[in-house]
Amino acid sequence: MTKPVRLVAAACILYAAAIPVLLTGCATARDSRAVARSSSATLESWREGPARAAIVSFVARTTDPAGVDFVPEAERIAVFDNDGTLWSEQPMYVQLAFIIDRVKALRAAHPEWETTEPFASLLKGDAKAVAAQGEHALGALVAATHGGMTDEEFRATVRAWLDTARHPKTGLRYDEMVYRPMVEMLACLRANGYRTFIVSGGGVDFMRAFAGEVYGIPTDQIIGSTAKYRHELRDGVPTIVKTGEIDFVDDGKGKPVGIASRIGTRPRIAFGNSDGDFEMLAWTTAGQGARLGVLIHHTDATREWAYDRASHVGKLARGLDEAPARGWVVVDMARDWAAIYGKLQ
Amino acid sequence: MTKPVRLVAAACILYAAAIPVLLTGCATARDSRAVARSSSATLESWREGPARAAIVSFVARTTDPAGVDFVPEAERIAVFDNDGTLWSEQPMYVQLAFIIDRVKALRAAHPEWETTEPFASLLKGDAKAVAAQGEHALGALVAATHGGMTDEEFRATVRAWLDTARHPKTGLRYDEMVYRPMVEMLACLRANGYRTFIVSGGGVDFMRAFAGEVYGIPTDQIIGSTAKYRHELRDGVPTIVKTGEIDFVDDGKGKPVGIASRIGTRPRIAFGNSDGDFEMLAWTTAGQGARLGVLIHHTDATREWAYDRASHVGKLARGLDEAPARGWVVVDMARDWAAIYGKLQ
Repeated sequence: MTKPVRLVAAACILYAAAIPVLLTGCATARDSRAVARSSSATLESWREGPARAAIVSFVARTTDPAGVDFVPEAERIAVFDNDGTLWSEQPMYVQLAFIIDRVKALRAAHPEWETTEPFASLLKGDAKAVAAQGEHALGALVAATHGGMTDEEFRATVRAWLDTARHPKTGLRYDEMVYRPMVEMLACLRANGYRTFIVSGGGVDFMRAFAGEVYGIPTDQIIGSTAKYRHELRDGVPTIVKTGEIDFVDDGKGKPVGIASRIGTRPRIAFGNSDGDFEMLAWTTAGQGARLGVLIHHTDATREWAYDRASHVGKLARGLDEAPARGWVVVDMARDWAAIYGKLQ
Repeated sequence: MTKPVRLVAAACILYAAAIPVLLTGCATARDSRAVARSSSATLESWREGPARAAIVSFVARTTDPAGVDFVPEAERIAVFDNDGTLWSEQPMYVQLAFIIDRVKALRAAHPEWETTEPFASLLKGDAKAVAAQGEHALGALVAATHGGMTDEEFRATVRAWLDTARHPKTGLRYDEMVYRPMVEMLACLRANGYRTFIVSGGGVDFMRAFAGEVYGIPTDQIIGSTAKYRHELRDGVPTIVKTGEIDFVDDGKGKPVGIASRIGTRPRIAFGNSDGDFEMLAWTTAGQGARLGVLIHHTDATREWAYDRASHVGKLARGLDEAPARGWVVVDMARDWAAIYGKLQ
């Protein structure tokens, strides 16, 4: 797995052309040592600065076979939180917007929801109250509103919703509100032999509905909160059904647990944006050899949202306090990103 | 994910050379339509016959962009049972041989094991009695003997054991008793854009100790039975520890459940050898489009072992009965395999 030829081949997949060049980091258009490549493997939406420099240096060092920080390709694992790290999470998690629409659609059949939390708050339009109940409430809403469907049926429902729903502030499709710099980062890491995983508190089947198309991440490289699945025969046909029983909450301490269980290799680099990602970054960077933690700090009230310590959604306090001592990179969205949204060409 | 250039690139990774040729199936040295390739992507240990022909045809049809059975690369998922499908499982699961040695090593510190099942049978040398207690007993033994270790510590223990242990009949290292035809099959499928997963009742961390080197399968593409992991701080350092609490048994109905949960995409082709694989093959082949189930039938008492309906380990009865009606391929090891063991060059 460590042979240079593998590295070149991995890069070629992204480059869509057999360019026999060994990459040493993720370039921007301004890099002096330019090599022939498509724009998809550059970090052109990242402004020059300490954040970009630290990440590019990390990638270069860990992929240099002659360096002390070299990481064999089998161990090049990169993990990304989703909400607030890969796409916007304000004023509420996208999955919550989906659930609100689903609960409204199913309201007539469930009169008990009018007086049961978190459904009652949700039906009253009190998104803050629902968000304040945390990922567990989100899991309960997913389980209660979607139990009994197969994962394939559920994902079709999500995709149909994404085709019609629009963000209340931007008017964009939700899957257009992914961060262009982070899509570039995913491509850059993959071009350098890293495999990219989502590790999110969101429901795994919700993310699996769109992450392939939007992020280029296959379904098995997505770790999220899950309800249990049940095997049953429907008219003699074996069927796997989503149940209402929560199996695993992939947040906080659950993130390194989920990584150990599902990936089985400690990541080399971890990206997050909230204190729900703290343990994931801490465990990642506690490993031996070259490791890096990266926090996306939401500082741009003009192009996105500015929030951290006081936010119900995506609260970031401990991470900001401890990042300097832990050597974590803090990305200042207003300063470090030349673009927020926008598909790559 | 479906562009021909991706397919070529995927093949090139295995070929260790940038040969711009679109594969159509897995050739043997005798194939008339030979293309330049290394021996690693051939099925040279597979004799001509209905089993090999059916699998080669399936791979060719599902990777032909012009055909009705074409499968986009993102959906090319192949799953393999481990014990009895990728390596030998007689006279007992390899993991059980490992556990016996570990229990003996830890016996003095655990006097209660002398009278508690499955430890008591194990310490009396009654492997059959232990095996008859099934995968759950195996899980309990793993949990009880290895709780409190990190996954990394546990895997180091397994690797050290593999370096010294020898099979009582063959005298071979256990990781030399992998089936050469199946290693060829893994390489063939990967050369054709399939991603290969292990889905086994064995403990996931046991398999993760050797599957990368032996099968070329990374840790995240291994699904197995698991004990829960716990996050704790050891002297302030975040650590993930294996607990004694069984979380998931990946056998029988658990196999399609594990696939739905971990992989999230229904496989196109599934390989097994026992009735513990029945539900995995049934769910795989119940999906829409081209699907294939393959059973490895242990028929070779000379070069390996011959067993099926009456065996405690790897019992195969229902699968044999229903394979013809379900269109599953049954591989006759004595007839279809020209070699059993032996590393590829």
